Amino acid sequence: MPNDKLAILDRLFNPAGVAVIGVTGDPDRVGYCLLESLVYAGFKGRIYPVHPRLDSLLGLPVYRSLDELPGPVDLAVIGVNQYATVDMVEQCGQKGIPGVVCIAGGYREMGAAGEALEERLIAAARRYNMALVGPNTLGIINTAAGLNTSFYPMRLPVGRVSLISQSGGVGLTILQKASDEGLGINKWVGVGNRSTLELSDYLEYLARDRETGVIGIFLEGTDDARRLVKTAAAAARQKPVVIYKAGRSEAVNFAAVSHTGSMAGSYRIYRQIFAQHGLLVAESVAELVAACKALAIAPLPAGNRLGVITHTAGPSIVMLDEVVRREVEISSFQPATIETIKAALGENPAVVIKNPLDAAGHGMLAASFGRLADAVAGDPGVDLVAAVYCLHLHWRFPSRELLAVRRRTGKPLLALYVGTQAGVREERDYLQAGGIPVYLTAEEAAWGAAALAHYGIRRRGEN
Amino acid sequence: MPNDKLAILDRLFNPAGVAVIGVTGDPDRVGYCLLESLVYAGFKGRIYPVHPRLDSLLGLPVYRSLDELPGPVDLAVIGVNQYATVDMVEQCGQKGIPGVVCIAGGYREMGAAGEALEERLIAAARRYNMALVGPNTLGIINTAAGLNTSFYPMRLPVGRVSLISQSGGVGLTILQKASDEGLGINKWVGVGNRSTLELSDYLEYLARDRETGVIGIFLEGTDDARRLVKTAAAAARQKPVVIYKAGRSEAVNFAAVSHTGSMAGSYRIYRQIFAQHGLLVAESVAELVAACKALAIAPLPAGNRLGVITHTAGPSIVMLDEVVRREVEISSFQPATIETIKAALGENPAVVIKNPLDAAGHGMLAASFGRLADAVAGDPGVDLVAAVYCLHLHWRFPSRELLAVRRRTGKPLLALYVGTQAGVREERDYLQAGGIPVYLTAEEAAWGAAALAHYGIRRRGEN
Repeated sequence: MPNDKLAILDRLFNPAGVAVIGVTGDPDRVGYCLLESLVYAGFKGRIYPVHPRLDSLLGLPVYRSLDELPGPVDLAVIGVNQYATVDMVEQCGQKGIPGVVCIAGGYREMGAAGEALEERLIAAARRYNMALVGPNTLGIINTAAGLNTSFYPMRLPVGRVSLISQSGGVGLTILQKASDEGLGINKWVGVGNRSTLELSDYLEYLARDRETGVIGIFLEGTDDARRLVKTAAAAARQKPVVIYKAGRSEAVNFAAVSHTGSMAGSYRIYRQIFAQHGLLVAESVAELVAACKALAIAPLPAGNRLGVITHTAGPSIVMLDEVVRREVEISSFQPATIETIKAALGENPAVVIKNPLDAAGHGMLAASFGRLADAVAGDPGVDLVAAVYCLHLHWRFPSRELLAVRRRTGKPLLALYVGTQAGVREERDYLQAGGIPVYLTAEEAAWGAAALAHYGIRRRGEN
Repeated sequence: MPNDKLAILDRLFNPAGVAVIGVTGDPDRVGYCLLESLVYAGFKGRIYPVHPRLDSLLGLPVYRSLDELPGPVDLAVIGVNQYATVDMVEQCGQKGIPGVVCIAGGYREMGAAGEALEERLIAAARRYNMALVGPNTLGIINTAAGLNTSFYPMRLPVGRVSLISQSGGVGLTILQKASDEGLGINKWVGVGNRSTLELSDYLEYLARDRETGVIGIFLEGTDDARRLVKTAAAAARQKPVVIYKAGRSEAVNFAAVSHTGSMAGSYRIYRQIFAQHGLLVAESVAELVAACKALAIAPLPAGNRLGVITHTAGPSIVMLDEVVRREVEISSFQPATIETIKAALGENPAVVIKNPLDAAGHGMLAASFGRLADAVAGDPGVDLVAAVYCLHLHWRFPSRELLAVRRRTGKPLLALYVGTQAGVREERDYLQAGGIPVYLTAEEAAWGAAALAHYGIRRRGEN
């Protein structure tokens, strides 16, 4: 992508002023919600609602036309129908607005007539060298700027994970799941029909974006696969890239084709190519979020050998099931570690000392759990640690202890806290702020650990 | 299992009086929490804490010994260490207490010495013809009775799903996930070392239990596989049985062996045998819960043909990815259905009418979403319906409409409501009370739909 395209994308994500075209006073309508989303997210720039007859909306003055806008506009969000959108893009171009988000569908995905309409849309954008997001999209989000061009008003935690989604609905699912998990989002884009901006363009932008630490992608299919893989591979040399690819069967490929007009190739081939190029492949929304979470919160391990400390064996077995099919090794503890653990357990422990270490009753109280976690993390053959603890109504969680281990050893830790009772959210936020991602299921903790191990291997392979 | 064993299990799950042996005044100790769990869950029978020196605890009088208990005791929960537990089982037997839950570990899972100790425990139980749950277990839960013998105090929603878990920690994860999802639990058992009661014994009991509508199992491995499969197959003729089996790799099998002393066979073989016998196989805790949820809440479909209605294509594509690998068909709509949908969409709809039906903007408002859902559900080629809707900050959810469709057509519906904002929990509880399970991810909705289709096929195959 030429540098000016990157610069334009940067203006789109950080606009000084946003025009919202197609606002209405009816809260049931998309146009109203587009404006509301900006207000609700606390957009830090200027907002200019445009409507030929309204005077004010949501406390903001409404402008009759683009001619009346009093300040610079970097981005226009267009919420009118597919036909009127073409005219509005033309008008925006005439006014020198560098970027537009086109919400309406009804183009290429509708067959020949829609395709002709989309060609007119593209021609208008090209005429003025504009960046056009969509059409048929929810648009873009930049949490730090309070920018949300979708008609779904929301407030998201601010963080380091940026997302590219080929589906608005799946993209929303990912945002929701991340939000539920206390995982901060940086930028988000629903690519829609990709008329002028391809998946790769956004990817290239996010790869260079300093605020983005991890990139997650939901992919249906693309006729630009070669460039996508090349761009993603280059991005993965800067920061982790996690891809969740839908359309794993012929029946589903058909559905994907008719949705955004994209071609879906064989899932198996996609998967192999992704892996060869150092990309992480997720098999579900939950895995995508779990992997992004670990990579955004924890440091990278120096190797791929996992140590597990728990007081309940089952979840650690489920974890092993998942990690051994990925690139994680379960190492044996060294003799000195075994001695340290023995000393921590005391007389007559009724514990088999092995990895995973199931300390049973010895692991239930925070202080002793912490001593054992410290021993496991201190083993020279352990590169990252998963700590599995079942939350109890009134026993204190071993969060302080785990953070101390994290600081002392410098190794990445993940916590699997079984339970969602009162207090868990606070505990989770406390741990995550200290660099320890927290999971609620063994599978998700395993995916997080595997993502760290995988990307750690990749980065070391380059040095 | 002989009938008297079933009768004893029934007394265990519905005890008139419970003795708690090994209570202490220290909230950090297991013995305190065992008592607290009964109080916290609102146990409806009598509770008798036993301790040689304490007078009262948690507002209850404490009895000095089993001799002093003033009323009948059906169940003793034993929270002392593994050695003292053997003596206490003997004492309980002498007093004629028919059942014990033995919490402590330190038996067979610890090697030869532990095995000898466990033999003494078994001998004591056999001598008095007692039912012994565990040892090395969290014990049992019966929500309707307010019974929770674990040292994890909790309050669970009451419902029709009963669970057998070979791991306390995974069993707790399942309870937590179910609770988060508003899925009611009936009974729960952590089988522990299975000294005198096998997985199959509990399964046989739950198969006959009228309050149990669906059975979920977390399995690590068993040396009693033949009987387990036979029992599960028989149970599945009465009610759905969903199994999640861990230990899918050699490395993990090793961990499972050293945990509860059980042998883990090849996962692939287990899986095939389960499927041949009409059992549903889940691949994760999330899938187990999603399947149990659909089966507990929705009616069975008359066939396996799924209709999907959505306003955002992506999640429906992810759903298809999952269901087409299971036993679900995606049918084409019949001409009359297409006409009804056309009429509902009005002029110039910019919608391709197919299954899944992505109604885009037409599907965003509850009323029109409802009309389209009604058309899809009314198609004679559709046996069950998935309705995919992204929750919006202030647009009304189409819950009322979906419940009306459900009543009118008599067909099972599942809702995928993307979002967890305020109001979602209430909306979910409202829908689930009306027979429509609600999911938050496309994968989970797909697993729910597949479980309904699968068990529907199975039940029809018998008639």
